[in-house]
Amino acid sequence: LKQITNILIIGNGNVALQLALLFNQKGYSVDIYGRDYEKSVQIAERTNANVLKTKQEISDKYYFVFYCVKDSVIAELVEKFSIFSPKAINLHCSGTISISVFDKKSLKYGVFYPLQTFSKEPETNWKQLPILIEGNNVEVEKEIAEFAKYFSENTEIVFSEKRLKIHLAAVIVNNFVNHLYHKAFQILEKDDIEFKILEPLIRKTIENALKENPLDIQTGPAKRNDVFTLNRHKEYLKLEDKELLKIYESISNSIKNTYNS
Amino acid sequence: LKQITNILIIGNGNVALQLALLFNQKGYSVDIYGRDYEKSVQIAERTNANVLKTKQEISDKYYFVFYCVKDSVIAELVEKFSIFSPKAINLHCSGTISISVFDKKSLKYGVFYPLQTFSKEPETNWKQLPILIEGNNVEVEKEIAEFAKYFSENTEIVFSEKRLKIHLAAVIVNNFVNHLYHKAFQILEKDDIEFKILEPLIRKTIENALKENPLDIQTGPAKRNDVFTLNRHKEYLKLEDKELLKIYESISNSIKNTYNS
Repeated sequence: LKQITNILIIGNGNVALQLALLFNQKGYSVDIYGRDYEKSVQIAERTNANVLKTKQEISDKYYFVFYCVKDSVIAELVEKFSIFSPKAINLHCSGTISISVFDKKSLKYGVFYPLQTFSKEPETNWKQLPILIEGNNVEVEKEIAEFAKYFSENTEIVFSEKRLKIHLAAVIVNNFVNHLYHKAFQILEKDDIEFKILEPLIRKTIENALKENPLDIQTGPAKRNDVFTLNRHKEYLKLEDKELLKIYESISNSIKNTYNS
Repeated sequence: LKQITNILIIGNGNVALQLALLFNQKGYSVDIYGRDYEKSVQIAERTNANVLKTKQEISDKYYFVFYCVKDSVIAELVEKFSIFSPKAINLHCSGTISISVFDKKSLKYGVFYPLQTFSKEPETNWKQLPILIEGNNVEVEKEIAEFAKYFSENTEIVFSEKRLKIHLAAVIVNNFVNHLYHKAFQILEKDDIEFKILEPLIRKTIENALKENPLDIQTGPAKRNDVFTLNRHKEYLKLEDKELLKIYESISNSIKNTYNS
């Protein structure tokens, strides 16, 4: 891994920050370039990264170029910037965008998708983190895999179609679960009850699901088709939160159909 | 708490088991009576409880009688058994059933609702567990509260209407979240991917939600109204899982309406 000295990160969100922290920690020289110069400077202050001011500063010295930007602008930015570093391995970090976004724009390219939700704090624990990788040919794939293994014990080569399904599962257990937490938070807030009261239940729920098959440990009124309780909940939601009522019905119906068919 | 020596638990599910373990540990003499004699015996083997064979053995020696049975049969069993122990404080452990289920059947009664999901293993950590209590008058309530405080630092007096809302929130963060885990499990299973791959993401999701307000940390395609990704997920679900498609749409719409209105 010695030949890899210079890495460019394009983007200045939380993925860019966490990768810059990681690469800096491992001794690489990191440059950062993003739309929002101030944000890049903030990342640089925490990571020793060097901030590029203009795209003209992107040179051909980088071994890896990471596109850590929103899915919707990856294609556009690859089009714009890949021309400046023809020898680099170009990578994006998206769960949904196909590797083919680099076709004809780059000779060596791939995907480096860490299966995690990133925030500013705390630093990410990379060691256990699954990193899903893909390369445009066997040699490139091997290089990306070796690099990823330097940080994580949990790297896996996954093609774009399969990655999309893992991303869907990730959306369900992260985005959807968080929205359910928000809805529970709201219900309690109306009665001045702190969300914290649910903490032991929330923790037990995930411990059980990670230990057993979630299919086997389902409980609750929908599972036992307890019409009385289901109706009381629905009556309350009809008055208080019609959006949550729709969620309540779709999940309860799905539970009923899973166990009573 | 010295006057409390004898406790009767009616029921032989996981709540009955966990309460029997707790009371035995604290030195009370526990009797257990349930529909399924064999199950009662299994509980007795782990807890030193004494098993009653017939309802005629229910005497008036009990300080507390716990109805740890399904919501749908609480009223019926109170009707049947409360007559045998007129001096006891009768309690149920349900999140949804009103305290009034004991009206005219008992002089001293209330609710002892531990906000947790119970399994056979491991033993419950009661110390941090919220126990929601209610009594039919101030003195009884005080007795139940004192008893609950002996196990938990987190007891709270909550009236039946408010308890129903907390129960709804509990259904959302436990039953609904577990069903989402099952659905994510299924998606991965089809491609021979282990559910374990989501563990770091699942753990980070709950740590974030417990540290911040879930409303403020929402991410994902629905939040940023990323129509391209939403449609790709929906196309996949249309072919693979119509039930999950309905859940996907109801939650995504709710997220969109939360942040874009």
